Amino acid sequence: MDCIFCKIIKGEIPSAKVFENEKVFVFLDISPLTEGHCLIIPKQHFENIFDIDENILEEIAKTAKELAGRIKIKLGVTGVQLVNASGKDAEQSVMHFHLHLIPRYENDGLEMNKWWQSKASKPSIEDLQKLAEEIKQVK
Amino acid sequence: MDCIFCKIIKGEIPSAKVFENEKVFVFLDISPLTEGHCLIIPKQHFENIFDIDENILEEIAKTAKELAGRIKIKLGVTGVQLVNASGKDAEQSVMHFHLHLIPRYENDGLEMNKWWQSKASKPSIEDLQKLAEEIKQVK
Repeated sequence: MDCIFCKIIKGEIPSAKVFENEKVFVFLDISPLTEGHCLIIPKQHFENIFDIDENILEEIAKTAKELAGRIKIKLGVTGVQLVNASGKDAEQSVMHFHLHLIPRYENDGLEMNKWWQSKASKPSIEDLQKLAEEIKQVK
Repeated sequence: MDCIFCKIIKGEIPSAKVFENEKVFVFLDISPLTEGHCLIIPKQHFENIFDIDENILEEIAKTAKELAGRIKIKLGVTGVQLVNASGKDAEQSVMHFHLHLIPRYENDGLEMNKWWQSKASKPSIEDLQKLAEEIKQVK
């Protein structure tokens, strides 16, 4: 398969590897938002949250927590951001599941909330409760 | 404890609940980025990724996957975004662990990548590999 992340795992494309075990591979993003920006990926090819094996996803979550603690020590980080995009309309670029772990520093200039607030809406609690009921009813 | 999410779980503050089991509670964000924007939280109070119990985090990951599939059916969604902010410098607002699940729609106007690209840098692979080695050495 012509997947760039599969090639990175196999070592066919060089990467800055941070961690590897039987199921999971972690390397530094080549376009980092901050210093230490990692990608946590499954070694087996899954496209995104919709098709990933549940046990592998749990392993990725566990790795994210461990790595967050490690990066906190190493880089003197006070916070981290975890981000996953699943699906083309979610602006997923590489179609191999990846969880971004982005170390956050005081005054790092990311200002994610500024972008976030500019996109947020304010529906009524009644409209939200109606929608929640509809979602609940899907089996 | 004076935590707004703990009060939501107890029903002391009204919410639009989507799902609940022994460990996890899911409700609609009152300032959604898109229709169906949920927050997945542990019922037990943890602050963020650094202190959350590993098993609870795995349960949250599992719930995110299940809910993504459910929302895909219900709302005709083609993608989802998962986001967690851990720590004040990561712009975490409520200090109770929460994973955002944001349904994404064609032409929903979020344009997260536009913001993302404006913040990204381009270090050399040598610099990245040096940093990866340093992170690896932290026990």
